[in-house]
Amino acid sequence: MAKPNLLIIGAGGVGQVTVNKAAQFRNDFGTITLAARNAEKLERIAGEVQERWSRPGEKQLVATRTVDARSVEAVAGLIRELDAGLVLNVASPYCNAAILDACIATGVDYLDTALGEEEFVENIPPNWYERIEWPRREKFAARGASALLGMGFDPGVVNIFCAHARKHCFDSIASIDIIDVNAGSHGLYFATNFDADVNLREIKEDVITWENGRWETIPHHSASMDVALPEVGAHRVYSMGHDELQSLAVNFPDTPHIGFWMGFGEHYLKVFDVLDNLGLTSSIPIEVDGVKVAPNRVIKALLPDPASLAAGYTGKICIGADIRGMKDGKERRIFIWSNCDHEENFREVGGQSISYSTGIPVITAARLMASGVWKPKTMVNVEELDPDPFLKLMPEVGIDWEIQDLPLDGSWPWPAEV
Amino acid sequence: MAKPNLLIIGAGGVGQVTVNKAAQFRNDFGTITLAARNAEKLERIAGEVQERWSRPGEKQLVATRTVDARSVEAVAGLIRELDAGLVLNVASPYCNAAILDACIATGVDYLDTALGEEEFVENIPPNWYERIEWPRREKFAARGASALLGMGFDPGVVNIFCAHARKHCFDSIASIDIIDVNAGSHGLYFATNFDADVNLREIKEDVITWENGRWETIPHHSASMDVALPEVGAHRVYSMGHDELQSLAVNFPDTPHIGFWMGFGEHYLKVFDVLDNLGLTSSIPIEVDGVKVAPNRVIKALLPDPASLAAGYTGKICIGADIRGMKDGKERRIFIWSNCDHEENFREVGGQSISYSTGIPVITAARLMASGVWKPKTMVNVEELDPDPFLKLMPEVGIDWEIQDLPLDGSWPWPAEV
Repeated sequence: MAKPNLLIIGAGGVGQVTVNKAAQFRNDFGTITLAARNAEKLERIAGEVQERWSRPGEKQLVATRTVDARSVEAVAGLIRELDAGLVLNVASPYCNAAILDACIATGVDYLDTALGEEEFVENIPPNWYERIEWPRREKFAARGASALLGMGFDPGVVNIFCAHARKHCFDSIASIDIIDVNAGSHGLYFATNFDADVNLREIKEDVITWENGRWETIPHHSASMDVALPEVGAHRVYSMGHDELQSLAVNFPDTPHIGFWMGFGEHYLKVFDVLDNLGLTSSIPIEVDGVKVAPNRVIKALLPDPASLAAGYTGKICIGADIRGMKDGKERRIFIWSNCDHEENFREVGGQSISYSTGIPVITAARLMASGVWKPKTMVNVEELDPDPFLKLMPEVGIDWEIQDLPLDGSWPWPAEV
Repeated sequence: MAKPNLLIIGAGGVGQVTVNKAAQFRNDFGTITLAARNAEKLERIAGEVQERWSRPGEKQLVATRTVDARSVEAVAGLIRELDAGLVLNVASPYCNAAILDACIATGVDYLDTALGEEEFVENIPPNWYERIEWPRREKFAARGASALLGMGFDPGVVNIFCAHARKHCFDSIASIDIIDVNAGSHGLYFATNFDADVNLREIKEDVITWENGRWETIPHHSASMDVALPEVGAHRVYSMGHDELQSLAVNFPDTPHIGFWMGFGEHYLKVFDVLDNLGLTSSIPIEVDGVKVAPNRVIKALLPDPASLAAGYTGKICIGADIRGMKDGKERRIFIWSNCDHEENFREVGGQSISYSTGIPVITAARLMASGVWKPKTMVNVEELDPDPFLKLMPEVGIDWEIQDLPLDGSWPWPAEV
């Protein structure tokens, strides 16, 4: 089987990590091309990759191309020009529809890390995958092309943790709680770790959880719990709507409770609440001095570029799944998780851990797709695939994972202070 | 002496109070016309005034005209059409230059309540009156027309309090501290009491105080003191740059210290600090999705219309001057102040106390100008005029004032809790 040429679309923080890791594992791929709007960013990243990964005398590892990733024609043209066999979409979620259609048009494999979104809307009712992605499943199947949806960390690895739990740890699963804590500090007053308008919207939107076969909705930040996680210690986490709930609800139909929790500190909540109370987190354009502008885009324009946070970031993240169920007639509770360290990740590839923990799963999956191990020849959410080869390979690409039985009383065995 | 026809420009909160009070004291004036951009607002206010002040069978008290108050030609044309003799400028401070020039062109008397401003700039160095107002003084003098600058409460009445103190209470003045506390509550999360972009800018700008013949500059909210004032009790007030400092520094050249202090509550400061730290109080346009927009204009677009606050406002304001100096060879300290009650003011004219306390001095001064008592036939800041007739007339128009000797140790004799 020929090694596929890789087309990586997106030159933000995740794109940078992804192309670094693609270059490190270049033996698994054909040519590697990084494409995005901004030629300057592309050149900078490609130059850094060359410096970091090339052996003396080795030719240019990564080619670059500017592209309008919201144009089906432009992306399909680039796929054909490069004879790409696998497209890694790490661009803005506003580009998903066009990139999917370009892959359908050319019959090549596809992978992304987040649900597609539309601009200037909010509080879309579930199921979100039914808007952009799943209606295109049959077209991928008809072309015999594979599309892996939501293959970052969360969604992505956490879905695979759930698949692992189902395969190896439980006879039946009663509840899944995905927990995401970033205990790092970027040292700035306020910043988002990825696209500000996408991030602020997902935090401000109504919270959905899957309860006994239906969606329940509550206001954002209205439900919280205190946890103590490996390497990051005690944190308060808040119930939040998140991509992976959408597919887990469908793929774990017998699980009564599926929720997602994210950690927020007091300062973050203070700033967010002010913005939210004043209407500044809104995606809906308003008129200002005769022009239309979405308030959350104004915030985005004022906040630091998420990729720029990496150099000063310290501390760790912990993302995992707290899963309860029955095994051999007994109740069981496990936590299955990974940690990343912002400083270590920056030293390795120049990115912070939020980008790193998204890019590592992308390249882990890309290697499995390139070698034919993961080749569903249709569109899947990643919990539908065999978790074993992924969880075996991910540590080699850059992130370890662990699993531990937890007390059934809901307590946490890790120290509050780290 | 014929009664002058009044042209009131501006239909915001202050305009509404001003035209109500003009109608109440209509015997002192010829015709009364309210002009602004928004025809709907004009009709609503004129209708309310008719209902509130007309006797049975009395003809329309207030005429209305739409006008572009930033156009010298439009304003001058309206002055001529109405044969106006006195223009009360209670419009946005961005209109001051055009309205001043229209009065010069037509030779009619003028009054305003705030320094003229330019859009999309900030932290202009003192003296602010030298930008728009004072360079036009000679032109008013040449026409024999009177222009009263800063004739609201602060600036305005507080300047007159200083003139009263100099005339009646002190042989020499060592320090003047203007103190402005709004102890009212509008019940909303956050709102400004007048034009949001003008208000946020004056709060965010560097603080200036006049110290021993020169301006000293410190960051906003970096100096505070605790006071206890009549009818509003204990409040923390923060040093702030403000219009009246600019003219008092010139007109009280022998006073070593002149400062301005405004009360801010913890919630207000929290919200303001978030906005300020994120760059949202800035007047300088930024690019958002291909259009240029000033962040503070986005905030303005999202905040409630200040005039809309009036109906739900409760509590009182206290604005006064804490003045120290020598009298008959002895140290003396006085406080000279007014209180207003938001609910009382709303019942009387449909406006909150911030608007009320600005509109009452406007009509008090307009009555003095109409009767020829105040007729400088040049441009003046109001502390240059005889304070006695003004302070005698203001209670009849709607606001009482009081004066009291204070302890020399800097303490306050009023109870902290009210």
